[in-house]
Amino acid sequence: MLSVEDALSLVLANVQRTSPITVALEVALGHILAADAVSSLAIPPFDNSAMDGFAVRTSDLACASPTSPVLLPLRGEVRAGDPPSLLPEGPACLRIMTGAPIPDGADAVVMKEETSEVEGCLIQFSSTPRPQENIRPRGDDIASEQMAVAAGTLLRPAEVSLLAAIGRSRIDVVPRPRVAVFTTGDEVVPVHGPLLPGQIYNSNQYLLNGLVADAGAKRVWTEHLPDDPEVTAARLEEASRWADAIVTCGGVSMGEHDHIRGAVERLGAVVFWRVSMKPGKPILFGLVAGRPIFGMPGNPVSAMVGFEIFVRPALLHMAGHSALQRPRVRARLLAPISHRPGRQEYVRTLTTIRNDEFVSEPYPGQGSHLIRSMTHANSLAIVPTGTGCLAVGDFVEVMMTQWPEW
Amino acid sequence: MLSVEDALSLVLANVQRTSPITVALEVALGHILAADAVSSLAIPPFDNSAMDGFAVRTSDLACASPTSPVLLPLRGEVRAGDPPSLLPEGPACLRIMTGAPIPDGADAVVMKEETSEVEGCLIQFSSTPRPQENIRPRGDDIASEQMAVAAGTLLRPAEVSLLAAIGRSRIDVVPRPRVAVFTTGDEVVPVHGPLLPGQIYNSNQYLLNGLVADAGAKRVWTEHLPDDPEVTAARLEEASRWADAIVTCGGVSMGEHDHIRGAVERLGAVVFWRVSMKPGKPILFGLVAGRPIFGMPGNPVSAMVGFEIFVRPALLHMAGHSALQRPRVRARLLAPISHRPGRQEYVRTLTTIRNDEFVSEPYPGQGSHLIRSMTHANSLAIVPTGTGCLAVGDFVEVMMTQWPEW
Repeated sequence: MLSVEDALSLVLANVQRTSPITVALEVALGHILAADAVSSLAIPPFDNSAMDGFAVRTSDLACASPTSPVLLPLRGEVRAGDPPSLLPEGPACLRIMTGAPIPDGADAVVMKEETSEVEGCLIQFSSTPRPQENIRPRGDDIASEQMAVAAGTLLRPAEVSLLAAIGRSRIDVVPRPRVAVFTTGDEVVPVHGPLLPGQIYNSNQYLLNGLVADAGAKRVWTEHLPDDPEVTAARLEEASRWADAIVTCGGVSMGEHDHIRGAVERLGAVVFWRVSMKPGKPILFGLVAGRPIFGMPGNPVSAMVGFEIFVRPALLHMAGHSALQRPRVRARLLAPISHRPGRQEYVRTLTTIRNDEFVSEPYPGQGSHLIRSMTHANSLAIVPTGTGCLAVGDFVEVMMTQWPEW
Repeated sequence: MLSVEDALSLVLANVQRTSPITVALEVALGHILAADAVSSLAIPPFDNSAMDGFAVRTSDLACASPTSPVLLPLRGEVRAGDPPSLLPEGPACLRIMTGAPIPDGADAVVMKEETSEVEGCLIQFSSTPRPQENIRPRGDDIASEQMAVAAGTLLRPAEVSLLAAIGRSRIDVVPRPRVAVFTTGDEVVPVHGPLLPGQIYNSNQYLLNGLVADAGAKRVWTEHLPDDPEVTAARLEEASRWADAIVTCGGVSMGEHDHIRGAVERLGAVVFWRVSMKPGKPILFGLVAGRPIFGMPGNPVSAMVGFEIFVRPALLHMAGHSALQRPRVRARLLAPISHRPGRQEYVRTLTTIRNDEFVSEPYPGQGSHLIRSMTHANSLAIVPTGTGCLAVGDFVEVMMTQWPEW
């Protein structure tokens, strides 16, 4: 049976980065920048004051000391936003605000707190500033023609603010992939209605909608499909015309009422079905009209693990990310894991930091139908195919799906 | 001067959790649950099959073995979603699908793959199943009247799907706080227009909007204020009637054109102004009409650090979170940090995992006006007040603002 690694390679070989679009900077957060942003400006655009204080010529204060302070006549004020100004010749100083342009002729700013005013028109200085003291030189942050943000960068608040600083009000980004979500199964009913004997509520729809949102993708369709091969095929075909990717849940097992696989075979091609992993073995990946379709098993834990391992990296790749994997850490087990060699297993665990070491506690019930087990976990411990049982204190590789906070 | 710890205590003592609201489960993701969700159902609601196979009475197969298989007449089929059914008396079996209710009289399910069909109406079994084999008992996940999701829990996809499973289509959550963002400064101009000498683009607006969004809050107002005390006071007063919290940037220094502090004093009360930290010393926290107002300094790095240390925990607290702090790890320094004792310093670093150890690299330029330094960081190293310089290889406590991925 196909290994997880080979299956993921097949997925990534069959999904493409979405074509870039131009967006206003206001909606850029969380996207991947599609083209290098080189600055046409120097940032800061002009020498400016780091402090509220007084712009001076250091030569005027060459002899200033606490025991023999120097008085300079105050000849005006420079405010932030003022156009370029001039420090008059002769002994003189100008009041200057933080961020205001350094006047021509000045070569230092003395902090307000280090001076005192004498009669309102003379300022007393009691030390000699270093040249360029409290001046932020033009281009200190970004030089003109320098790369500000490289293509492929995730736009966090810092990157978006840097793009604003260099005057980029429109940028090219990789759009979020549009995803259609389908759940299946005649026993599954909407949470808003009654529950008759033999029925269960459609919890998987909320699980997948949430996982799609958390992966940064845009859900454009959610529907529950009856166990009907014609309806199933018609919906998948229609979705392949609208959406960049399709995620289904259920209907991919051996049963005669499992119609997803048949529909994908009819409309396109199954790339793989069944992967050597636990939970999640009967996972399907295929293409319909060139659009990737991910058939998750109907058991909620299998669907969640299958999404983490295959769908999330694919959606991140489509959105232009190069970091596709959840962070992995080596953690010490706080309880044993019983594992039958044969399939790579993903064990729901709660991983925390204790004495500067990651420790991971497996949830007692690992049945793939136990939704509650997912609510107690923030990570998946990876038990490779050939491994036997793991004991308390053994190290295990852990995929962090959420980081511990406190 | 006020310590960071004391300042944060003052902030948290002055902000309240927002009043709960009822929302449809469709929009619950990312909120904090406001009231315990106790299940009125058992989950699963009925004993059901874990496999596609055959529902049997184990007593009918007591003698089955590979060398002497037993044939049972196939007396029907149970599909997922079917109402309760009955395994007829006498030797008999029923075809059963994954998730279908176990018929009365059956006490095990034998996997389809372990059987063979003889003439379509007789099924051959070659081993004796254990009682309850491949049966998921009613209540295995959640018992009736058991707590499913406790008040105060962050609703991730797993929690939302568990609420769906127990039939909760409406729930009470703590709403996201509504935040007003104001930038200030006559030198600051919108990114969509021209840049005249002495002006800079309004990058802080994008920084704060992004930080508010990343903290899970809802921005309801963004405006740039001129250096005018009347306009400043009028806008803060109006915002205090609309928004749950106000964040401003700039205008909190010693300068005579810094109007935020004056406006807060006029409209309400300043709780603190200036904290013993670097960057970010001239931070203001106050209350206007009972609404918290956070005055961030105008330097972008100071604004970002001030937001991380004070505003984000406050917004998380208002949104009902109990984990308010970014995760902190102990990391080994890859470059020295020069630090003058006196104020707690936050140093922008890039922290990664190398040989199962966190390592942290300070960005070379730590000036509080260097926007680019924020784009190279995923963490803030905390250098406490009394510490001197730190050398390569020293350990430092690091606040992770983003986790390394690969």
